[in-house]
Amino acid sequence: MNLISMRETSKAFIEDILKTAKKHEKTAREKKVLSTLDDKTLGILFFEPSTRTRLSFQAAMRRLGGESIGFNDAHFSSSAKGETLSDTIRVVEGYVDAIVLRHSVEGAAARAAEVTTLPVINAGDGANQHPTQALLDLYTIQKEKGKLEGLTVVLAGDLKYGRTVHSLMYALSHFGCTIQLHCPPSLKMPESIVEEVRQKTTVEEVTDFTQADVVYATRVQRERFADPEEYQKSLYVIDADVMATLKKDAMLMHPLPRVQEITPDVDLDPRAKYFEQTFYGVPVRMAILETLMEGKNP
Amino acid sequence: MNLISMRETSKAFIEDILKTAKKHEKTAREKKVLSTLDDKTLGILFFEPSTRTRLSFQAAMRRLGGESIGFNDAHFSSSAKGETLSDTIRVVEGYVDAIVLRHSVEGAAARAAEVTTLPVINAGDGANQHPTQALLDLYTIQKEKGKLEGLTVVLAGDLKYGRTVHSLMYALSHFGCTIQLHCPPSLKMPESIVEEVRQKTTVEEVTDFTQADVVYATRVQRERFADPEEYQKSLYVIDADVMATLKKDAMLMHPLPRVQEITPDVDLDPRAKYFEQTFYGVPVRMAILETLMEGKNP
Amino acid sequence: MNLISMRETSKAFIEDILKTAKKHEKTAREKKVLSTLDDKTLGILFFEPSTRTRLSFQAAMRRLGGESIGFNDAHFSSSAKGETLSDTIRVVEGYVDAIVLRHSVEGAAARAAEVTTLPVINAGDGANQHPTQALLDLYTIQKEKGKLEGLTVVLAGDLKYGRTVHSLMYALSHFGCTIQLHCPPSLKMPESIVEEVRQKTTVEEVTDFTQADVVYATRVQRERFADPEEYQKSLYVIDADVMATLKKDAMLMHPLPRVQEITPDVDLDPRAKYFEQTFYGVPVRMAILETLMEGKNP
Repeated sequence: MNLISMRETSKAFIEDILKTAKKHEKTAREKKVLSTLDDKTLGILFFEPSTRTRLSFQAAMRRLGGESIGFNDAHFSSSAKGETLSDTIRVVEGYVDAIVLRHSVEGAAARAAEVTTLPVINAGDGANQHPTQALLDLYTIQKEKGKLEGLTVVLAGDLKYGRTVHSLMYALSHFGCTIQLHCPPSLKMPESIVEEVRQKTTVEEVTDFTQADVVYATRVQRERFADPEEYQKSLYVIDADVMATLKKDAMLMHPLPRVQEITPDVDLDPRAKYFEQTFYGVPVRMAILETLMEGKNP
Repeated sequence: MNLISMRETSKAFIEDILKTAKKHEKTAREKKVLSTLDDKTLGILFFEPSTRTRLSFQAAMRRLGGESIGFNDAHFSSSAKGETLSDTIRVVEGYVDAIVLRHSVEGAAARAAEVTTLPVINAGDGANQHPTQALLDLYTIQKEKGKLEGLTVVLAGDLKYGRTVHSLMYALSHFGCTIQLHCPPSLKMPESIVEEVRQKTTVEEVTDFTQADVVYATRVQRERFADPEEYQKSLYVIDADVMATLKKDAMLMHPLPRVQEITPDVDLDPRAKYFEQTFYGVPVRMAILETLMEGKNP
Repeated sequence: MNLISMRETSKAFIEDILKTAKKHEKTAREKKVLSTLDDKTLGILFFEPSTRTRLSFQAAMRRLGGESIGFNDAHFSSSAKGETLSDTIRVVEGYVDAIVLRHSVEGAAARAAEVTTLPVINAGDGANQHPTQALLDLYTIQKEKGKLEGLTVVLAGDLKYGRTVHSLMYALSHFGCTIQLHCPPSLKMPESIVEEVRQKTTVEEVTDFTQADVVYATRVQRERFADPEEYQKSLYVIDADVMATLKKDAMLMHPLPRVQEITPDVDLDPRAKYFEQTFYGVPVRMAILETLMEGKNP
């Protein structure tokens, strides 16, 4: 009934979501409105502000005929008055049919799921997990490469704090992908995740993108660094020169927003797929909402 | 056509709302969507941010088939540009069918009602009134105790600035309840309210909860105190020890959010009813919206 | 497919909008809900906060049966994380059927229109243009004066930074109106606009309102002035005394919010039409949404 972490999500559930998302892609593309969740109300509780993820969920809910209510900043919620997360969840539980939660604290979604019987969807908890992003990432790869099995995927950028790449590691491990990590020394993937995923598939460190079927770039956030010099050293840029080193049939992804990691001229390269990727958030989240509200377990 | 203050609200109107709310409780609990207010639009104008009350009204409007638009902070409204409240009301009047107003200034809702012919619902004006909360409080008491008449109700905490207890005083006075006040010396119920309510029912000061059928706790807000020491002295805590002093069939209420007034272990006590109470906000606000939009007078 | 600037908007398009708005006025006044845009979703992207324009668009979309999603402050959007406007547009493009954009930077709407195939509606770009306001202004004048042709219109207040008067200049030029400019020396209408509009109609500076069929007052914003003294000198007030100098059948407009420019007692003068004007925003924006979503070009 919940979607909290890709770590606990089964391959069968993932495949079910990808299949359901495929069914919804046409509706999402043609921007139709179904009546599947006609009388359902989604609670979108974002204790950290967001555009993309929030609007993507609202759009997905809209396409299924339902409505969304909620907030987009802890300052405007009771938590600013000192309310605990569990109290907020128990209150909102009376108003909605499912809860999408974004929170700065790791484990917040798991905590929310403990106090409510409603489906809880983790839309990002601190540096921990962002499972709906991982599912749309898989969908994008499958769509553009025709398969998931056996691909070589490079995860680049901030692998330490980037919750999207943490979720993606677990997601890819189900499909026998070779995972290559490309990052500055201070932003390495947590050892615990690497060890766990290595039991299922190959994980290796690389310094170029030459073997990649998929390059997954992420944003390096200034706020992660106490020392501005360290931040400057950790920056990287994918430009036309870097793209020239990629395979001809490789694809470039990014969860967005990007800042300086990918130069605008790369947008014209047919291998750049990040805008397709963000669009696929709609059918994938439609599939997630429909599936969880129908009571299936990940 | 308006709901501004419990002071001017008749017993007949209260009973009508409670009866209509009862009709809607099943819909609220099963989270269905009716078509009663299908083509109506509610303006939720919150000059002070809120989660609970705002989402509760949105949910109530949704259950009746209608939609809500508005804002949740004065910073994002024209008032930040210096617009008067009456101008804002006269503008929004053209867009919606009824207005729910929360404002930091006492009398704001009454002022709004003067400048528009639309129904105006006071969702809190400064330290003055919060009548929809009082109605859901009554509903909760009636639901859990089976009646309103003749109960002993202790109001505890910040009785000076707490608008919910001000409204509740007037509401309870219609039903012959004995009202007991339990608060620090600096946070006493305004004398004008006590005097007025005493004409209809018994109001007395107490220092324990032993006689209570209902304990109604409220939050003591730090921002009310210039002196932090005075704030510390005014804090109180209802924990298992305090609960042990309550009657076996007493009930404990709180308008939420709570901070430190009620310890989390009390949640498991069957006499703790604050989460039921917050849920009852939906059917009660459905009743209020339906009644006022159909043009009945309080 | 877009509405970016009145400068490029044809007379035929304006007349088409005014005609369609007339068709929708009854629906707007009776607050009915049509099914014209039943399955459409409007993206309201306000990088600058707003009450009136945002709620007016939401109400218009609601009356046509559609829904709106979006944000009302750049702080809560990805742009706070450093995302470019074009990236935001390309992302939101996947979620909605048309985009209404407010932005502090001149040319933002034109830029947005370059990167998306969706209809883009400029709801204010810096001190540049506010074309939907100009259209509702025309509608109001036509409604109240029975015609647009040959009127004498005084634009008063901040003509330098006021985007509504910039758009209105171009709009009025199609109808042979005499445009009179009434402003402090530091807030003059940009010479480039005056020159361009003078090729089509008379533009002259005045120091009173005696010849006006229409007085269009605007707000002088403190934040435009480095020197508080200069701000004080630029303030003006339309009160009963000033109203006494107007023609008996003149009308007084203001895009609102007003601060001190028009005293509250003037509201009772039957020539004060600014609250009618703000209401006409609904049918006019219904017409704009319907027309652009059906793919007509301005």
